[in-house]
Parts: sequence; structure tokens; C-alpha cells
Amino acid sequence: MSAQIIDGKAISTRIHTEVTQQVAARKAAGKSTPGLATILVGDDPASHTYVNSKHRACEEAGINSFGFTLGADTSQERLEGLIRELNQDERVHGILVQSPLPKGLDEQHALSMLSIEKDVDGFHPVNIGRLAQKGPEPLFVSCTPAGVMVLLNETLSSIEGKHAVVLGRSNIVGMPVALLLVRANATVTICHSRTQDLPAMARQADILVAAIGRAEMVRGDWIKPGATVIDVGINHVEDSSRKKGYRLVGDVAFEEASEVAGAITPVPGGVGPMTIAMLLRNTLKAAEMSDS
Amino acid sequence: MSAQIIDGKAISTRIHTEVTQQVAARKAAGKSTPGLATILVGDDPASHTYVNSKHRACEEAGINSFGFTLGADTSQERLEGLIRELNQDERVHGILVQSPLPKGLDEQHALSMLSIEKDVDGFHPVNIGRLAQKGPEPLFVSCTPAGVMVLLNETLSSIEGKHAVVLGRSNIVGMPVALLLVRANATVTICHSRTQDLPAMARQADILVAAIGRAEMVRGDWIKPGATVIDVGINHVEDSSRKKGYRLVGDVAFEEASEVAGAITPVPGGVGPMTIAMLLRNTLKAAEMSDS
Repeated sequence: MSAQIIDGKAISTRIHTEVTQQVAARKAAGKSTPGLATILVGDDPASHTYVNSKHRACEEAGINSFGFTLGADTSQERLEGLIRELNQDERVHGILVQSPLPKGLDEQHALSMLSIEKDVDGFHPVNIGRLAQKGPEPLFVSCTPAGVMVLLNETLSSIEGKHAVVLGRSNIVGMPVALLLVRANATVTICHSRTQDLPAMARQADILVAAIGRAEMVRGDWIKPGATVIDVGINHVEDSSRKKGYRLVGDVAFEEASEVAGAITPVPGGVGPMTIAMLLRNTLKAAEMSDS
Repeated sequence: MSAQIIDGKAISTRIHTEVTQQVAARKAAGKSTPGLATILVGDDPASHTYVNSKHRACEEAGINSFGFTLGADTSQERLEGLIRELNQDERVHGILVQSPLPKGLDEQHALSMLSIEKDVDGFHPVNIGRLAQKGPEPLFVSCTPAGVMVLLNETLSSIEGKHAVVLGRSNIVGMPVALLLVRANATVTICHSRTQDLPAMARQADILVAAIGRAEMVRGDWIKPGATVIDVGINHVEDSSRKKGYRLVGDVAFEEASEVAGAITPVPGGVGPMTIAMLLRNTLKAAEMSDS
């Protein structure tokens, strides 16, 4: 058996196009141009690459972007002062604080300073709290978890009643994905580094989400035949045959897994491109919320 | 085999005594007397009974309590105005809004108005959000879930790596208990009304928490031999042999389950008495936090 490949590139391209059209329609109707402010602190090269990609995607979609780059020695006061300014700035509908912040800065405290109406990354504790509760919906769901749910909804006719096993409990992926799956009426098992017999847990999954950051840890025999496998991992492994000297692999051993799974995301080209697509969608939503 | 009975009454009595002694020591040291304000809206008889029990327990522990009873026709503005007053009142260290509020009032919005430093019931979205994230601890954990964790820690030498299955995903018990179990490094499965084959899921549990509100739904053959079973349910079932015409039973069929489980909470006398004990402890903590 060979699994259906879940084409995150195609799905994210479709969302980019939709957002681009909606932004153009807003402008044509005389409404404000959506604006995203990014805050990048320090010199982490990967973070610079991510933020650049986000600005480029905004530009392509017709969204204004405002980049703020602060030195690694920035104080908490300076960072939070900037957030307060941006909370007030009417041109800015969404604010993104690129993670990780340099050591010594309190990321959670900084995030709690964000206006929840501008929290397009969905990491304000109130938005996370709402995710964990019945009642008011979170204003924004963080981008990678929201992207995982889009991929699942594109692939499955229904999530309800399915057994979803989430490997990993990080703030940015594992835990919010688990909470979203509960909201979608899946039975959800949260596994992590202290789980005993991870393969046996994974093998129960109708939906398996791997977000552990360990290259190809999930083997073919961890997968229930026919399962839907979402691989959130992006790991560099050495590969002298490549020009860059490495290749990207997921947390799932793709070749083995695709022999067993019903559907599976590739790496790259699965979850990865969804993150920025959801950021664009959230920024548009923030602008729409500011209209009224 | 007959299970160990987890004596919530004895454990909660010990906590009452500890809090009482600590409150007396505070007063002797010239510090403020801890104060709890309760807000009760409408005429629900069970709510009146609960609030009265809380006031009585405060009195026994030397904690001041301030009861506010509002009519069923109270407006959202009036309710939130009172919360704002109590947020400012220095005699009040903890504020409890008794659930459920009458229809037409927005409970989640009212809770979000609480000062998180006074949220002794642990239902402010920021406290729930922190529960779902690594990083800063919630200032307060809601009382019944916190009580469940005390019972587990009293019964088991370790929770880490155990498979905990939580039946129910309510805001007030199921979901926060699941999040606390993840924090305690258990592997956690969250089940609910849409779960397929609930008995099979439950049978995997080293730790089974039943919080579904269905009298004796969990049968003996749902339980893994030796498991620790925490029964959060309190259900009235008709019983003409009792003076009151009913008796209280849990979500677990106690007689059957205690033949299989390693340890089990009775109903009444298990989780029930823990809730008020944890409320007293949280109120004392709120007073201690206000000292500095």
C-alpha cells in the first residue's frame, strides 16, 4: 500500500491566493491595508530567515509589513515598550514576536503584553486559555497548529470520534494541536519524552501528529495501517551528496511510514508551508476585526 | 482483590488543620487575615448550599468571608462592577464567582475581569492558559482538579510515565485535570461523549479519572487490574430506603470497581471534601502573595 501524500504546498498556495484576493477586495472597498509587525531580537540566523520569509509572503499578498530588529542586549523594558507602541499603532493589525528570544528576556511576559486583538501568532495566554476551555473561541489560533488542522480537514471527511495521538507537548505545536483536536471531538492522547512504550501508543492512532524534533524517530511499525500521519518535524541531517551538506527530514521515517499510512505529509512540503499561510490568514482576520 | 480506599475526608481534614494553623500563625505575626469574597447570583439551591459550606469552612479556618448575593436579574455591568470593587478591596484576597451563573450572564467574561492575583478558583483564562503551557506556573489551580492531584500524590509514589485516562473534558474538571496530569509527566488520554469504545480506552488507564456526571457508568470491567481510580462524579439516584429519598453515587460503580482497582475514591468522602480544602489553601496563598 502506498499512502496518499498530503500536499501542504498546494494547500498553502491556495490559501495564499485566497488571502491575496481578499486583501485586494478590502483595498478596493476603501478599507485599511492589513499590517503585520514583526519583532526580531538578536542574531539567530534561522530566526532572520523565518522573519524574512514572512515579510516576503506579506508583500506578495498585499499586506504591509513592519520589521523591528533589536539587538541581543535589548532589555525587557525596551521590548515591552515597543509592544505597547505597536498595540496603539493603527497601521499594525498583527504583532509577531519571533521565538526564541535571547536568554534573559521573559518571552511569556512579553507575549502577555500583546493586545489579544493583535496576537496573530496566538500565543497570548488568554488565547491559549480559551483554546483549553469551552466558551469563547480564541481570537487567533497559533499558525502551525492551525495549519495542521487545515491539513487534517482537507484529508479526512471527519475528525470526530477518531483517536488522535500527539507526540510532543510543546507550547508552540504539541499542546495547542492536542487542544484543537479535543475541540474537533477527537479522543486525544498526549505523549512525550516520559511516555512508556511510545510505539505502542502511536500504533493506536487513527491520526498521528509527530512534533518531537527527532529525525525519523517514528518508524513504519509505529503506524496503524491506514492512519493519517502529520509530520511537524523539520530536522537537518548530514548528507554529503547534497550541495548544502544536509537534507531536511521529518520526525517520521517517510519511506517506511508511507507503506503503512493511509495519508501522510512529506517533509519538506507538508506542514512547513502552512505556517506562513495561516499567519497571512490571521493578519487578514485581525484587520477585519479592526473594521468594526 | 479489594482496593485501597483513598480517604479524601481524612486528607482534606489534614489540609483544613494545616491551613487553620498557618492562618493563626499569620495573625500572630501581625499579618492580614486572609479574606474570601463569594459572589452568588440567583436562586439555585445547590449553589446556595455550596457557598454556605465555603463560608462555614472559612470561619472554622479563621479566614474572613464576605458573601455577596445578587438577584437572578442582575446585569453583567452590575456583576462586573462588583468584581472591580472587590479587586480593589484590600480585605479581600480571593474572589469566587459561584458557577453556574443565571442564563444571560457571560460567565467567561466575568471571570476574565477578576484580578488574577485573586482568582482562587483558578478559572481566569490567564491561569488556564498557563496551565496549558510550559513557562510561568498558574497562580492558582482550580480547586477540584488540584484536589484530584493531591489524592493521586498521596496514593502513588510517582505519576510520571503512567498512562492516565480522563473521562470528561469540562472546563471545571476534565480539561484542567488532564493538563495537570501532563505537567506531572503522565501520558494522558482525554475521552468524552464522542469517544468510540470508552471501555477499551478506560481499560488502558493506570490512572482513571471519571468526571462525566453519569451515575455508575464506569463498570468493573472498564478498569485495569491495579489501577488508581478517582471518581469525581456526584450523582443523585432515587433510593426510597433513604430518608431523603435519594443517595449519592459517583460516576464509577464502586462495588464492582473496587474488586479490580488498586486504589479508589469513595463517593461521598473522596474527591468531594477536597474542593473546599483546596479553596482554603488557595485563599491563604492569595493572602501570602499580597504580603510582599
